[in-house]
Amino acid sequence: MLSTQTIGSRSRRFDAPEKALGRERFASDEYPESMLWAGALRAGVPHGLVRGVDTTQARAIPGVVAVLTAEDVPGENRQGFIHWDMPVLCGTKVRHAGDAVALVVAETRQILAEALLAIVLDIEPLPVVDGLDAALAPDAPLIHDLETGNVLKQASLRKGNAQAALARCPVVIEETFFTPQQAHCFLETENGTAYMAEDGTLHMTVSTQAPFRDRFEIGRALGLPPDRLHITAPFLGGGFGGKDGSTVQCLLALAAMHAGGRPVKMWWSREESMLAGYKRHAARMHFRLGAEADGTLTALICDLDYDSGAYAHLGVEIMALGLEHSSGPYRVEHLEANGRCIYTNNPVAGAFRGFGVAQVCFAFEGMMDRLAVRLGMDPLELRLKNAIRQGDKNGVGVVMTGSTGMAECLVGLQDHQFWRSRDEWVQSAPPLTRRGVGISAVYNGMGYGRGLADAAVAKIRLTGDGRFRVYNSVSDMGQGNSPTFVQIVCEVLNQNESQMELVQPDTERSHPSGSSSAGRTTYTYGKALIQACEAMRDKLLHRAAMVLMADEASALSLVPGAVRHTSSGRELPLAVLAGMLHPEDRVCIGEAMMPVTHDMPDGGESFRLGFPHLIFPYAAHLARVEVDELTGLVTVSDYVAFTDGGRVLNPQNFEQQVQGAVAQGLGYALWEDCVAENGQLQTTDFSTYVIPGSGDLPDIESHAVETEEESGPFGMKGIGEVGMNGPLPAVASALLRMGLPMIRAPFTPERVLKVLCGGNS
Amino acid sequence: MLSTQTIGSRSRRFDAPEKALGRERFASDEYPESMLWAGALRAGVPHGLVRGVDTTQARAIPGVVAVLTAEDVPGENRQGFIHWDMPVLCGTKVRHAGDAVALVVAETRQILAEALLAIVLDIEPLPVVDGLDAALAPDAPLIHDLETGNVLKQASLRKGNAQAALARCPVVIEETFFTPQQAHCFLETENGTAYMAEDGTLHMTVSTQAPFRDRFEIGRALGLPPDRLHITAPFLGGGFGGKDGSTVQCLLALAAMHAGGRPVKMWWSREESMLAGYKRHAARMHFRLGAEADGTLTALICDLDYDSGAYAHLGVEIMALGLEHSSGPYRVEHLEANGRCIYTNNPVAGAFRGFGVAQVCFAFEGMMDRLAVRLGMDPLELRLKNAIRQGDKNGVGVVMTGSTGMAECLVGLQDHQFWRSRDEWVQSAPPLTRRGVGISAVYNGMGYGRGLADAAVAKIRLTGDGRFRVYNSVSDMGQGNSPTFVQIVCEVLNQNESQMELVQPDTERSHPSGSSSAGRTTYTYGKALIQACEAMRDKLLHRAAMVLMADEASALSLVPGAVRHTSSGRELPLAVLAGMLHPEDRVCIGEAMMPVTHDMPDGGESFRLGFPHLIFPYAAHLARVEVDELTGLVTVSDYVAFTDGGRVLNPQNFEQQVQGAVAQGLGYALWEDCVAENGQLQTTDFSTYVIPGSGDLPDIESHAVETEEESGPFGMKGIGEVGMNGPLPAVASALLRMGLPMIRAPFTPERVLKVLCGGNS
Repeated sequence: MLSTQTIGSRSRRFDAPEKALGRERFASDEYPESMLWAGALRAGVPHGLVRGVDTTQARAIPGVVAVLTAEDVPGENRQGFIHWDMPVLCGTKVRHAGDAVALVVAETRQILAEALLAIVLDIEPLPVVDGLDAALAPDAPLIHDLETGNVLKQASLRKGNAQAALARCPVVIEETFFTPQQAHCFLETENGTAYMAEDGTLHMTVSTQAPFRDRFEIGRALGLPPDRLHITAPFLGGGFGGKDGSTVQCLLALAAMHAGGRPVKMWWSREESMLAGYKRHAARMHFRLGAEADGTLTALICDLDYDSGAYAHLGVEIMALGLEHSSGPYRVEHLEANGRCIYTNNPVAGAFRGFGVAQVCFAFEGMMDRLAVRLGMDPLELRLKNAIRQGDKNGVGVVMTGSTGMAECLVGLQDHQFWRSRDEWVQSAPPLTRRGVGISAVYNGMGYGRGLADAAVAKIRLTGDGRFRVYNSVSDMGQGNSPTFVQIVCEVLNQNESQMELVQPDTERSHPSGSSSAGRTTYTYGKALIQACEAMRDKLLHRAAMVLMADEASALSLVPGAVRHTSSGRELPLAVLAGMLHPEDRVCIGEAMMPVTHDMPDGGESFRLGFPHLIFPYAAHLARVEVDELTGLVTVSDYVAFTDGGRVLNPQNFEQQVQGAVAQGLGYALWEDCVAENGQLQTTDFSTYVIPGSGDLPDIESHAVETEEESGPFGMKGIGEVGMNGPLPAVASALLRMGLPMIRAPFTPERVLKVLCGGNS
Repeated sequence: MLSTQTIGSRSRRFDAPEKALGRERFASDEYPESMLWAGALRAGVPHGLVRGVDTTQARAIPGVVAVLTAEDVPGENRQGFIHWDMPVLCGTKVRHAGDAVALVVAETRQILAEALLAIVLDIEPLPVVDGLDAALAPDAPLIHDLETGNVLKQASLRKGNAQAALARCPVVIEETFFTPQQAHCFLETENGTAYMAEDGTLHMTVSTQAPFRDRFEIGRALGLPPDRLHITAPFLGGGFGGKDGSTVQCLLALAAMHAGGRPVKMWWSREESMLAGYKRHAARMHFRLGAEADGTLTALICDLDYDSGAYAHLGVEIMALGLEHSSGPYRVEHLEANGRCIYTNNPVAGAFRGFGVAQVCFAFEGMMDRLAVRLGMDPLELRLKNAIRQGDKNGVGVVMTGSTGMAECLVGLQDHQFWRSRDEWVQSAPPLTRRGVGISAVYNGMGYGRGLADAAVAKIRLTGDGRFRVYNSVSDMGQGNSPTFVQIVCEVLNQNESQMELVQPDTERSHPSGSSSAGRTTYTYGKALIQACEAMRDKLLHRAAMVLMADEASALSLVPGAVRHTSSGRELPLAVLAGMLHPEDRVCIGEAMMPVTHDMPDGGESFRLGFPHLIFPYAAHLARVEVDELTGLVTVSDYVAFTDGGRVLNPQNFEQQVQGAVAQGLGYALWEDCVAENGQLQTTDFSTYVIPGSGDLPDIESHAVETEEESGPFGMKGIGEVGMNGPLPAVASALLRMGLPMIRAPFTPERVLKVLCGGNS
């Protein structure tokens, strides 16, 4: 562990002033001169054969620069980066109502809207596959021409012999749970600008979580060489997984190829974002859990069905994480986890914070609460008894060699006054109000997992005038990884923030470091950055030794703005030193890869990518919940989260991440649901798709349980996702304690009232 | 220690084919288009006041572009880099016959010669200080206006109490030794070309040992900003220290400043090189050595006088090394070493292989032989008994923490047939011939020593087409450091030489790494290069992991021309990988500094720079010598060298270094002597200054005693100098064994005959 000065302190975020003053430029702030607008015509039909797209009238409108259809797509016309099955523009078939069938480039947004309306679509409707049951029916229409029907991927993981073990268990719990499709609802919807330069390079500024990978996705889809694609990713106004993969990118690039070198802007409206953007997979999860009479967990058999919507995106990998996390952060000796990722004509599902895990945490924690009730055990004691500890094997047989703070988080809750006083609080409920205190214990694998390099390449430059330019190359969606990078550089080089400059990802200035996802950004890039900074420090001390005539670099130290000869106090300003170095010599590049496990359960080999994981952050959440017995309205009045994210680099950022995730998780628990009827989205904007505002949320207390993850930068682990997984099961736990066994989220008043009245949720 | 494949093997030198084919371009091969010639007018007078320099006639000659005098020098007009006391062009005083007083730039070499003859000098002669005695005389004329007279520096080192210890010694030996001024006699005399670009940058290609430092020496002398000086140093046709410091550089730069942007060439003739080039310091050394009756060395008191000639150059630092090495590679408990570096009107002395040490090795080994005779001891046993070993303190109290193979070298000699059969060989001498077998034990501090960074910055580039470009930045004088660098890169990156490109030092392409001197080049730069290569290896494996979808860099390995996924055999050609990397990302820069000691004897602090040293190579030499009793002619019939240079990187290079140094050392012992009479050099060319040809030399057997210097690259130490120090004392040792106590080198027939006839040498 390095000794630290700014690391661990609640320092102001480097990006805060520019953002607070409204000066930070997001992709959507780009309005280049002589700019055109591009927009896509959506199918409107959830499933159908494209008979014709008549663009004649649209083309005739003055100010329309181009009207493009599938025929105009020069490449493979398939988007996606692991399973590429989504057309840029559909030419033969549409598979969900948001499929793009035509692309218009126009002088103004008004002309664009007019031209889109003027395109005449001839689509022959096919029967709509509106959900899992419809997709799995023997005579279900095939959405893609797969031999496996509408099942994109089926897989089973096995550890021990779950069937036999379950048969022997004195206590067996069985239940089926359902989670909804959730929308990311970032403030800044999908957008970007692009132009094709005379040399054939396509320059794009886009709100993306994966600028480096975008080059390959766009390149393949449109037949462009990836090295002629230059992607810049400014700060994002939110991402949460919804910008991990092409949204506007391919359409925008195609538009730019037909814009005669002029810049083109595409910016989806909220409605288009809801219709065509990626969503969290809805899931159906059947669990059978066996335990000993003392509460020791023995065996789990579960069947998970994920609704992938019309296309694959990362559905297979998301299902893999669901299976991987299906037995929760506990020791369970025998596991059989079966999963299916299933095509429907619903909106396309994809990456979302909690990536397949948020779903199973609801289910497994629901099983734990039911088991506690069955055994008459304290639900926290039951969790603590089974909580996974360092050295244990997790559900899929991976030995937890890293920091494992699950028990510490639970102990934190146990000591919290809200837990200790839970009975008094419940008993003092006002009339017609039920109260319950629920808890959840959750975790979330960090990083890509096995099968591909979770790698980063960090760069730092000493500028010609002696400042440090930090090149972030993993998008900052707002989570604050990039100001943390500034903090890391200040720490290792012993500099002040006033000496720092921060550059956001740019494929021509920074180096491939993967996507902003999977709780990996600060971990992987931070490790690489520390290496780059240490190389820079060594370089500067070494070079300064030559100038200051010191025969040992150890006689020197970095101080803000200078190298100091420690004993004599002589200083060489960094601005002077910088002037002596070649530009090439003022750059340090470091690289890092996240470690992987070599443990693998039976069946795990079938996942080429992203399974299993080695390092996990953990969290234990508590919700004080009230239910109005007359309306079924659920109110979360207090919320507490204990989180093990290893060492905390900046308590403020840490807290913000936890609070943001809990807010999103409470939305998932209580309100958010993309409702599609017969494949047509009903929740098209924020009047029907409800996300919590600050008035809907309790204060969210965040406590860090600081373990030391030895592999991590300064001992940290990424907590971008884990906080998302706790609220839904914690609220469900509270409801169960008050006699309301909810199996279907979100817990709307209607559903709760039904259970209050003795029905099922 | 790294495991090795090419390291340690007798691989062909990378530079050999181009040199053998005559295609390598040395500085002297440069004849740029529209080139002018520059030349200096030398004073001719060893000491005098400049009354006038009439350039009128010279200027009038058609084809003369410029005739410059001291008035035209814009800067400080002082050369030198530690003590800068040598004018570029003398304006008021000349201090030796080779001083430059005017500089001509002309269209052709013929016009140049004519113009130099047409300049009229008016110099008022001053009394000539023709040697040490004259310089130290109470009424000696002052060569520089020093308060210390003609003594540039006087210093004393003390360890223990030598006076008292010596007084108690049962055996005391006393003698005075003399060594001559020696010329470097490189094949390629001092030369370069230069031009001033329109942007004010002065570009120079020059035969130099210190291109990076030259910028500062030229810059200060001529008032040019060092960062506007661009120096390129191709392979040198020899250097040996004589190109460590400005030779043509300042004159050439001054000429280029007056050439209207045209390139100018300056190339000293052999005669000009002999007259104006640097020389090895002549020395007078008075030694008193005290020992116990069993041969244990106890105390040394010595007085060393070094003749610096007209200017300081590195005289003070050279004297420091003389004092440091004055007690030989032995344990001597009490030391008092007094030194003086003295100005005379002789040619300027400066750096030369063996840097102050070659002189004292002659003296101290002479003392050892005399002590052996006095005690009736075997001279090898006496040396072995006292030889310094790891953990011992050397003469100036520095603990030998590194590899210390002195005894091993002596044991090597002891087992050699030439030593074991010495009596038979001596007894079988032909008539009128005396025979003797002499030995010497020598060492030589490696690197700069304390007070300045012995540092290097190594660079390697993966080219766009997947080859490796190795940037040497310490001049290769022919010693083969740069092909060894290629070998190192091949080793660390597991590549073949066919993948390699080698670039010689260039201040705009490579990075400051100090001078090619002090046995430091392969050690310091090699360490830095290993670091750069390891960074390159890590980088390439890491980047390839991303492309090959490997989740661990350890799954990959470098093979010639590619990165291979070890288990699957899949390969990513380096040419493909290179195409994916930014140019900036294809460069790795490593740095290294030589470790220093914190031990310091009394009086040592007065040397700011270059004293003391921590790491030493060692050698034991043997010479079988015959003397013709009629003529005094000395012939070395066989020669053996055992050398501890740590681990041997390339046995062929090692052997070449040893053989070259021994040849130069035998020249020093038997022939070479810069004779000046009243300050006028008599040995102006190779008809009067005699260097050995191959017919004059015996076969030279080289044996490596491989110790492991843990601090060194692959365990090596630099042996550029140590081999120079052995021949003179080894030959003297042989002569002493045959009754010829020589105290003055070289051992010319005249001197030997005199001793044969009962006189002193």
